[in-house]
Parts: sequence; C-alpha cells; structure tokens
Amino acid sequence: MRLVIIGGVAAGMSAAARARRLDKALEVVVLERGPAVSYGACGLPYYLSGRVKSLDELVVYTPEYFRRERNITVRTGAEVAAISHPQRQVALAGGERLHYDRLVIATGARPDRRAIEGAGLPHVFALHTLEDGRRLREFLDRQRPRRAAVIGAGYIGLEIADALRSSGLEVTVFESEPDVLGRQDRELTKSVQARLAAHRIELRLESRVGAIEPGRVAGVACDLVVLAAGVRPNVELAAEARVDLGRTGAIRVSERMETNLTGVYAAGDCVETVHLVTGGPIYLPLGTTANKMGRVAGANAAGARERFAGVVGTFIVQVCGLGLGMTGLSAVQARKEGFDPVSARIEARDRPRYFDGRPTTVELVADRRTRRLLGGAVIGEDGVAGRLNVIAAALGARIGVDQFEQLDLAYAPPFAPVWDPLLVAAQQLAKLLD
Amino acid sequence: MRLVIIGGVAAGMSAAARARRLDKALEVVVLERGPAVSYGACGLPYYLSGRVKSLDELVVYTPEYFRRERNITVRTGAEVAAISHPQRQVALAGGERLHYDRLVIATGARPDRRAIEGAGLPHVFALHTLEDGRRLREFLDRQRPRRAAVIGAGYIGLEIADALRSSGLEVTVFESEPDVLGRQDRELTKSVQARLAAHRIELRLESRVGAIEPGRVAGVACDLVVLAAGVRPNVELAAEARVDLGRTGAIRVSERMETNLTGVYAAGDCVETVHLVTGGPIYLPLGTTANKMGRVAGANAAGARERFAGVVGTFIVQVCGLGLGMTGLSAVQARKEGFDPVSARIEARDRPRYFDGRPTTVELVADRRTRRLLGGAVIGEDGVAGRLNVIAAALGARIGVDQFEQLDLAYAPPFAPVWDPLLVAAQQLAKLLD
Repeated sequence: MRLVIIGGVAAGMSAAARARRLDKALEVVVLERGPAVSYGACGLPYYLSGRVKSLDELVVYTPEYFRRERNITVRTGAEVAAISHPQRQVALAGGERLHYDRLVIATGARPDRRAIEGAGLPHVFALHTLEDGRRLREFLDRQRPRRAAVIGAGYIGLEIADALRSSGLEVTVFESEPDVLGRQDRELTKSVQARLAAHRIELRLESRVGAIEPGRVAGVACDLVVLAAGVRPNVELAAEARVDLGRTGAIRVSERMETNLTGVYAAGDCVETVHLVTGGPIYLPLGTTANKMGRVAGANAAGARERFAGVVGTFIVQVCGLGLGMTGLSAVQARKEGFDPVSARIEARDRPRYFDGRPTTVELVADRRTRRLLGGAVIGEDGVAGRLNVIAAALGARIGVDQFEQLDLAYAPPFAPVWDPLLVAAQQLAKLLD
Repeated sequence: MRLVIIGGVAAGMSAAARARRLDKALEVVVLERGPAVSYGACGLPYYLSGRVKSLDELVVYTPEYFRRERNITVRTGAEVAAISHPQRQVALAGGERLHYDRLVIATGARPDRRAIEGAGLPHVFALHTLEDGRRLREFLDRQRPRRAAVIGAGYIGLEIADALRSSGLEVTVFESEPDVLGRQDRELTKSVQARLAAHRIELRLESRVGAIEPGRVAGVACDLVVLAAGVRPNVELAAEARVDLGRTGAIRVSERMETNLTGVYAAGDCVETVHLVTGGPIYLPLGTTANKMGRVAGANAAGARERFAGVVGTFIVQVCGLGLGMTGLSAVQARKEGFDPVSARIEARDRPRYFDGRPTTVELVADRRTRRLLGGAVIGEDGVAGRLNVIAAALGARIGVDQFEQLDLAYAPPFAPVWDPLLVAAQQLAKLLD
C-alpha cells in the first residue's frame, strides 16, 4: 500500500508524518519539485531584515531526517507532470511513473503575477520560496538598492515593507484596494497607514500597478520591486486529472479533505475550505491551516476517519512593531454576507496604568438579531495574539456577545487590567445591541 | 428611590457605577468603612517591591470623583453595624440610620488569622488593604528586616515572597498543603518550587504554622512575617440580617446576584458563585469576578434583568518572572468531582526557534467519556495569559477536545509557532482519549 504526496512543504509533510504515525506499514513517498522540504516560508521576511541569519534556520526538517527517522521517502527535484487516476499513477517530468494507492495533492500556491507587465525584469522579486529569499537577499547585498516598491498591502507585503525599511531602504507600498490586509476595515487601514508613516514607509491605496518599468513603478523611482499581490492556487495538475475545483478556483474537498476522486486527497494552499462564520467556501492560504489540513488528509489517507471543519479566518501580522490581528468578518464583510452587523471598537490599556499599561484597540462585530459574534480585530504592541485567539475560540464555539462578556479571563497586574480590553469591547457591543 | 451599597472597593464601586448608568434618577450611596474606595489591592505586592512608587497609583478613582462626575455619594469611614431588612435600614456604627430601597452587600473578605498564635505580634502583617501596604512598607523601610516568613503559598503569598526577595530579604514560604496555589497539581508545584529555588526562596510544603514566635516561625529565624493563608468572607453583617449563606460559608446568591431577601443583592469577595465546569458552588474571591458580579448586582438593583452565570476558576500569577496560569480543574480535582479525567502535558516553544522561541508548558484535562475539556494550565515566560484565556473561553463555551484541536489560532513568527502549544497539547490529549 503506497501513499504518494505531491508537495513537501507544510500540508504535504504534515500529511506524510501523520500517515506514517497512524500506519507503520504504509509506504509513504513525498515528491517535491523544489530543493527543500518542510520549511517555514513565513520566516522569509525576517531573513531579509537579518533577524534570521541563515535560510537553514527556516528548514524544520531535512529530507534525510524524514528518511532516517520517520521512514518517509522524500524525493526533492521531483516534478510531477501528470496524475492519471484511472491508472492510479503519477508521471514525473523525466518520464518515470509511480503507482499510488492513495494520493495527497499539496501543490501549494504561487505569486500572482497576472496583469503586471515587466514582472520578469531582473530587479523584480517575489518572496514565496527559500530560493526567492536567497535571490532577493543576494540582490540586496550586491546591488545595494536604495528605493523599493512593494506591490500589495496584504500581510506579506507589509512584512516585506517593514523588513526592507529596517534594512535602510526607502519603501513605497502600492495597494489596488482602498484598504489593507484584505479586510475592508477603514480604521484598521488608518492604523496601518499611521504606523507605516511613522516609519517613513509610504502607502498608496487604490493604486493598481499595471506595469513595472526598469527604474520606476507608477511614477515612483525604485531600483527594487517586490511582488506581494496575493497568490493563486496551483491547481492545474489536479484540474487536468479531473479533480473538481470550487467557486474560489481552488480544489474542492470534503470535510475529510478528499476530492471528488476516491482516494485522492488535497490539502494546503491549493484547496479551498469552509469559513465557519459564513458557512461558505473561502480560499485563505495560510501556514497554520495548511498544516491542520495536511494532518487530516494524511490521517484519512492512512485509513482513519477525521474531519477538518474549517476556519474562522484568523490572521496576525507585525508591522513596524505593531501587532495587527483579525478574525472572522469585519462589519463591511459581514454586511456583504447578509448579516446585520453591529460593531464596537474600544481603546483600553493592556495592563493596569501602574504596570505600564499601553493602549490596545479591540473591535468586536456581532449580528444584531442573533447577538452571535461574527468577528473581531486587535491592534497593539503586546498581548495581541492572545486576545485575538480568545475571539477566534469564541467564533469557533459560535458563542454570543452575552456569553463572551462574562468569559472568565485571567487577571493579574503583570498580564492584564482587571477589565480586560476584550470584555470592555464586549460590554460596549452588548450596549449597542440592546 | 435609594440604593445603598455596603463596601466600596471592587464589587461595590462596580455596582454603584452600573446602577448610576442605568438609572439617572436613582440615589446611590456607598458606605465604605476604610479611608479609600476603588483601589487595586492586587497591585500591593508591586508597591512592596518598589515597582509601584506610591499607593495613590493604586487608587483608580477618588470619592470626590464619584461624587462630582458620577453623582454617587461615597462615604468613607462609614462602618455599618447592622442591617435591618424588615425596616429596610442600615445602622451605622455611630448610631445613624439610613433607609434603603435596594441594598448591595459588598463587604469583601479578610485575611484568615484563625489558629495562628502570635498573629497579633508587631512584626506580623497581612497585605489586604492599602493601609496594610502602607504599614508593611514602612516596616521594611524603618526596621530593615533581613529574613521573612510568608505563610501561605497561594498566589498572594507567592507574589509577596517574590516582592520581598527582590527587595533583598531572605524568604521562606510555609504552605500547609502538599501543593501550591490550591491546585493539587504536582507538576505545577514542582515548577514553582524550582523557580523559587533559583531565586533562593525556600518553599516548605506540608508545613502548617500553628504559632509565630517573636523571632522565629516553625524553627526558622525571621524578623518579618506576612500572613497569606487565604481569606474568609465578611458575612457576619449579612448573616445577622438573616441573609442565607451557602455551603462554602459565603453568601448565597441567585444568578441575578440577589440574596434570599428581596431587593438585597450581594457581590464580590463575600459571596460564593457557580463553577461552570462542576456546576457546583465555589468560593473564589478574585478581583475580576468581584467586578463582574458587582456590575450585575448594580444593574439588577437598578431594575434591569441581568445574570452572572459563574466562573471557570481562571487565575494567573507571576512568580520570579515565570507566568503560571490555570483554569477549570486539575486532573486530581476533576477526579474528586466525579469526572474520569485524562490529561496531557506538553512542553513546546512559544514562537519558532528562529524567532527566539522559549519553552512553555501546557496541560489540558478532559473527561474520558464526553471528551469535554475540564481544565488546563499554562506555564512560561511569555504569552501565558493569552493561551490561558483561550482555554478559559473553551471552558466557558463547553467545547470538547476535538473542537479545541482545530481552533483557528493566530500564527506569525513574532507571535507563535505554526502549531501553537495549545494545539500540540490538544493533539496529545486527543490521542490519549482515543
């Protein structure tokens, strides 16, 4: 019995490791077209800024480790050219064919370079793979660029802008939408813009970049361009094998991470999942989700029965020392999804005044009729992830604002004020709902 | 219509402020026997250590503020001698009588000095009120004691030990139970003991102190003793007025914070509440809970209909730089409550290795049959409150380990590893339950 996994980064290696743990007799083969597996691409901006000294630090496990310690066959430089499900075979680019009993497709995503002319120029980079990181860092070291344009103000674009600025470059960020982080939240956008401005990073909103010239982007002089305008799922291989795609354009899977083809699973940045607040499909490629999905796909491919319920859309980013976290829906998003949203936004100290409490912002969104929480955001310098995760847990458990308001949260002066900012926001929201 | 509130610290002032907000016409009178209201007693250990420079910093609002800004009459130095409910009157120690239409009893608690001989000696202190803090600090400054005995290894005892040690004293902590923090958790106790030892604080467990001698406690020389062996609810006034007590010995209240006497509410450290995991009564005097209860009591006293559901027993303390948080039940406690507990304890990095991740410990406890989460603990140097609060939210929402395992928690290298320690613990626990 052989399990073949296409792709060896987050979802692929999670699937491999889990399948191996559950079935010691299964043959597990991972085919990765790149030179490395199991690396943390999320650390790449910190390699640019110099916080991470070597790309090796981002590699969690080597192929040798998986072979030796886990009895998992990892083949790097192994590009799959086609999947033939009737024959249960994958064809490698070199012509070799490999039989599978179960297949996990974890082909990931790639930077979206569509509709940008000049994206192939030598001073234009993306930051998606270790190799991208190596190339960009070399360019920085050798060419010493002075002005950078970052295209896209999603979390990766903002992290890259921060990293380049802290390396001394002048940075302009171009975003085609009127808001950052894909959130449709004006207040959040203002917070980011102010923070960037304080670090002399210019943010140009509603500024679609159609073409990159050798020394110029949209009229701004620059000698380095980094593309961070989102990613597209790598679905071509799957689609050619008649794996169904969903309406987001990514692979559609069941709760068990199985595609429409029996025994063929898919996980990670190439699939769509369920948004637990809206109940609808969402394409939200993130490392955490990829790992969770991979784990479930691997378990089921090894004969277990597990499910991945979906996400609430939690994500967090640090921009110039400011933590920005969001989960669920913003008020604008909630209205588009058919809810009648009410939101409260408060600023409060994250610890008592006498314990150097700093301001933190919490926004909570609830549905007027059901009083169910729909989303939230936390902005601050400390404790952002923890507070955000409480909202994420509340969304996952589908609780209402009245229950949230009475959560028994921890209090001691070194950690929080007696009324945690989360509870202050919930009180405010409950008042607006009454 | 007059609302009288007995006690003006956490619960009392929360009740007053909330009642005022909901009913502008209500006369609100707070009777506080001490000289100050609305102060953060939880900051007292940090006044001892010098982090808080002045006791004034611990006072959130003055009586004048409440009078001027909130139209709340605050009388300090006003000791209530009796409540006469048939007449709806309180009698002050000086003989004055005051009519009430609604009453909130927020008489708090006092240090438990029972069964300790010599507790009245001049070098013996408690740390419960601002005045206690002032006296102890004066003693430290004038007498320059060198060796301190702290009686009780609850969170206050440990905070005091830490504060005294950081002021240069030699400190021994005596605890009558075999465990610290009232938790019946050997691993937690070991962590605390190791941390204390590293800071040269001696912890003597199973060491009941029956008597304090002038220069000696249980054979250990000392020139300062601080009592921190728990508190007792101040219920005498209520009991004499025929307010029912619960089986914990504290005042019994309904979900609306009303006592058995109509129109008489009680809140804060003098009442018992419901433990949402066991469903039974619990006496757990904490500032957060007092404030929440006071808010609900004040709302209902002002004619609203609100409820306080209960607590899950969350608390957190910092000891010598180590954060220790716990919520719900430990495995030993769960077994005593009739559950069939299974627990998993893991150590993991709180951020990626390449982002200076430090070890953090997470324990989760679930019921074998229902797989419902029953409790958890988090120990570490960073992110402890946030992770603990996620467990507290999960307990509040009564979710099971399988749902917890898939919580969509935030990930970015400055905040957390891709598999948050909470999820690692949940995976481990789910495996043990299978």
